[in-house]
Amino acid sequence: MQKQQITNWKTKLHDIIYEADTPAGKLFDVVLLITIIASIVLVMLESIKSIDAKYHNILNISEWIITILFSLEYIARIISVKKPIRYIFSFYGIIDLLSTIPKYISLLLGGIHALAALRALRLLRIFRILKLARYLGASNMLLSALKASRAKILVFLFAVLILSIIFGTLMYLIEGEPSGFTSIPISVYWCIVTLTTVGFGDIAPVTPIGQFIAAVIMILGYGIIAVPTGIVSAEYTAQNKPGTPAKKDIVHLNTQSCPNCSASKHKDNAEFCYKCGHHLHNA
Amino acid sequence: MQKQQITNWKTKLHDIIYEADTPAGKLFDVVLLITIIASIVLVMLESIKSIDAKYHNILNISEWIITILFSLEYIARIISVKKPIRYIFSFYGIIDLLSTIPKYISLLLGGIHALAALRALRLLRIFRILKLARYLGASNMLLSALKASRAKILVFLFAVLILSIIFGTLMYLIEGEPSGFTSIPISVYWCIVTLTTVGFGDIAPVTPIGQFIAAVIMILGYGIIAVPTGIVSAEYTAQNKPGTPAKKDIVHLNTQSCPNCSASKHKDNAEFCYKCGHHLHNA
Amino acid sequence: MQKQQITNWKTKLHDIIYEADTPAGKLFDVVLLITIIASIVLVMLESIKSIDAKYHNILNISEWIITILFSLEYIARIISVKKPIRYIFSFYGIIDLLSTIPKYISLLLGGIHALAALRALRLLRIFRILKLARYLGASNMLLSALKASRAKILVFLFAVLILSIIFGTLMYLIEGEPSGFTSIPISVYWCIVTLTTVGFGDIAPVTPIGQFIAAVIMILGYGIIAVPTGIVSAEYTAQNKPGTPAKKDIVHLNTQSCPNCSASKHKDNAEFCYKCGHHLHNA
Amino acid sequence: MQKQQITNWKTKLHDIIYEADTPAGKLFDVVLLITIIASIVLVMLESIKSIDAKYHNILNISEWIITILFSLEYIARIISVKKPIRYIFSFYGIIDLLSTIPKYISLLLGGIHALAALRALRLLRIFRILKLARYLGASNMLLSALKASRAKILVFLFAVLILSIIFGTLMYLIEGEPSGFTSIPISVYWCIVTLTTVGFGDIAPVTPIGQFIAAVIMILGYGIIAVPTGIVSAEYTAQNKPGTPAKKDIVHLNTQSCPNCSASKHKDNAEFCYKCGHHLHNA
Repeated sequence: MQKQQITNWKTKLHDIIYEADTPAGKLFDVVLLITIIASIVLVMLESIKSIDAKYHNILNISEWIITILFSLEYIARIISVKKPIRYIFSFYGIIDLLSTIPKYISLLLGGIHALAALRALRLLRIFRILKLARYLGASNMLLSALKASRAKILVFLFAVLILSIIFGTLMYLIEGEPSGFTSIPISVYWCIVTLTTVGFGDIAPVTPIGQFIAAVIMILGYGIIAVPTGIVSAEYTAQNKPGTPAKKDIVHLNTQSCPNCSASKHKDNAEFCYKCGHHLHNA
Repeated sequence: MQKQQITNWKTKLHDIIYEADTPAGKLFDVVLLITIIASIVLVMLESIKSIDAKYHNILNISEWIITILFSLEYIARIISVKKPIRYIFSFYGIIDLLSTIPKYISLLLGGIHALAALRALRLLRIFRILKLARYLGASNMLLSALKASRAKILVFLFAVLILSIIFGTLMYLIEGEPSGFTSIPISVYWCIVTLTTVGFGDIAPVTPIGQFIAAVIMILGYGIIAVPTGIVSAEYTAQNKPGTPAKKDIVHLNTQSCPNCSASKHKDNAEFCYKCGHHLHNA
Repeated sequence: MQKQQITNWKTKLHDIIYEADTPAGKLFDVVLLITIIASIVLVMLESIKSIDAKYHNILNISEWIITILFSLEYIARIISVKKPIRYIFSFYGIIDLLSTIPKYISLLLGGIHALAALRALRLLRIFRILKLARYLGASNMLLSALKASRAKILVFLFAVLILSIIFGTLMYLIEGEPSGFTSIPISVYWCIVTLTTVGFGDIAPVTPIGQFIAAVIMILGYGIIAVPTGIVSAEYTAQNKPGTPAKKDIVHLNTQSCPNCSASKHKDNAEFCYKCGHHLHNA
Repeated sequence: MQKQQITNWKTKLHDIIYEADTPAGKLFDVVLLITIIASIVLVMLESIKSIDAKYHNILNISEWIITILFSLEYIARIISVKKPIRYIFSFYGIIDLLSTIPKYISLLLGGIHALAALRALRLLRIFRILKLARYLGASNMLLSALKASRAKILVFLFAVLILSIIFGTLMYLIEGEPSGFTSIPISVYWCIVTLTTVGFGDIAPVTPIGQFIAAVIMILGYGIIAVPTGIVSAEYTAQNKPGTPAKKDIVHLNTQSCPNCSASKHKDNAEFCYKCGHHLHNA
């Protein structure tokens, strides 16, 4: 009887954490989102020296609060899932852990040098927000358009790279060291900067021939931007057409996730998990 | 009998100010447009120190003339509308007031420091010109194409932001302070500058790894520009098609506005206001 | 009898100069094109101080040769047309004259100061090459696509201008003089530089709020570039469709021009001028 | 009998080197690709002075190993083809030779000055990788879309050039030497930098009129980028349509090449060479 109660309590927790169909689940997701954004803002503020010097204590305490909240969430996630091992070693499981441990490690090691590495780990928290993209049906269309034109985009990127290496080497030979083209990799870097129409201006050609080739690179870059745009446009137009049902993705807007195997993307009226056959709503 | 005359006079004024179907109404609109542009040019010229020093008096007198003209227009608008309170607290009503009061306040306070804030208020005059966009049928098509692809554009902007935060933090860790990447927000700012292919060059990576990641960001930015372009292109193509009447907006090019409730966008052959039922042409 | 001969000689000259259907006419056009390009290269080389100092005499003689050639061509054009007055005061007639007189004026005035103005007049020679675009059928399609989307492009440019003025004024108020935003026009200029993703970097925001707004401007600029692209893409796609014959321009690739009134764009099988009724082939 | 054996051995070698249908052929292609990339990386590393100073010997030895490998490959290619003369004077034959000889020449001449020229020849090795593009079906579609819109792209580039010359001369006259617009070619170069939205910022206008014209150039550049994009988009959309079979290229994904005349692009089920009639599989 007591085991039944525990199972019910676990099921409830699972519904709150992993699903967004109940009011409690929705609230949990919104609170989590705010906490993640707050944690990113904290990492950002900490990196500004003048702010860190002034409000070091407030930032430190806030960081500890968020770390403890994330730790509690991590423990709750482990408890509520039937197969915790599978969750722990899943992509999001590892990120969830990495979002919390850096602060605990800083307690043990404390040093300033270790902090740089810690901040890098904190960065991964951002990926959590990416989960939200799942709710937006539009992103599925975006991704399927990108997937459909993947091969063409790769060929395009390959062509850009080849062009950059050829023109980069050419510019290195023509301009040489006085203009800042000190080595082929630097010249290739400059060529990418120019071809993509970014144009920092930290390196710029000074010889007439160098400037002529630079002009050719720019016009090339200005022209070939039409290629990826044309690809995605055509793919989009094709997906929007009524006569092409095969390419249309059916977007599932429910947020159910199996309490047994954590699989998601169930059909809207699904009763059992499509992966392990476990019942989705009852424990 | 006299009341009838006043009402007739008010109706005429309403037709001139709020509608552009009569010759007098058209003339009023053109004069107003020229005055607004002149007032913007004045604000601009005043901000150039060398010009302000030379022609301070002329600029000041011109500013006063425009302020008085705008004030008279504001009063005329209040008089000619049946429900002035509704106009005063509408979006354009507030902007109309804010276009005139700064100069009067400068008379009371006079100081130089107050001028900075005053100029900010003057800026809002520009919004008046935006009204003109209503007359251009093409802008409706532009807006409906943007509205239809709103969700996709939001997802796209969200992806750009995430990418900027991730790459910005990465660049902060790699490049650090000597190259100008002094904090994560500055690095994220630099990342947006690079991803959007603006490339100011005030901050630029100097380490080989930093330059490699910068090259990746540039190519990404160069490639993903295809996404919003593809979205709008497909949406436009869809709107241009003859087989999709549901998406086609019927543009009303008349400029009638109800003298009672100020509602606009009436049908071309409308006799009564679709909102309050008041007669549109007779008082 | 002699008059007949003169008329025949004039007709032949007209065919060579104004039409490209005969071998002699084609040769004339190619020679003219090379001369125009040579004259532009000459103007360019003259503007480079080091080259002008070294090869001043050669450049001067070449310039005289081209000027005399252009003068002869101008006279031949006047002789061969039936109504020379109409040609002299036509757009190309004025440009043809302006291409030759600067050098003769320099003979009379000679001074160095007058040269700057002269060079500006020489610039107009370039327009001659634009005539060639007529031969390329593709340019007609380009122009008709641009014409069809003219209204939308104007609305778009208007929106860009409004955005630049609003954000420019905002940046002037936030950044102020220390960062280079010395006046509103300069700030608006900077805003256009940023919005169009050019990004010179001569002026760049330094305050956190300024950088934040700059980031917003960049993302806006990066996003709204989709609008003109979308417009032209949709227009192009519409023109390519088989079901829209009304929008398809019939391109006339013949280069006939009436010997009486100089009207061009005649139908391929036209015998008489569509404007003045003069016979196109016989004098 | 022995001649038969040699012929068999030659056929096998031909299959390995020129075709990618057998496991040995695939392995050869992958190894070749890695070697080419390694040789490019070597050329790049050698150009970085600090690395060349430290690891000069290692780089030199690696360069020798790759040169010898490329030489062996070159000899094998000559042996395995039936008509070696045709291969030697083909495009890839010359590149294959140029990929190997620079190092041997450096042995004879040895000097430092000769190295610059040698590096330029090494650059051509990159073209080898371009062969790979043949395997990717998507690149064929890309190329055919570019080919179909070639005329329009040329007209567009011509228009960009004309605009750059006109605005460049104008900027030279307005800005002059103090702002860095020292000659017309430099001004035209700056104009291309601005029109293509690259914007280095090494040269930037300082006079109000110059900045106004710069703003016009930027908005023009920002707007006309829509033209090539529109062209390629429309061409792509047309190629994707089911009703246009004439424009669809049939992509041959086999990599067979005739052992007699080296012709490639054979049909998938081809038994004999479409050019010389030689049997494709048996010698």
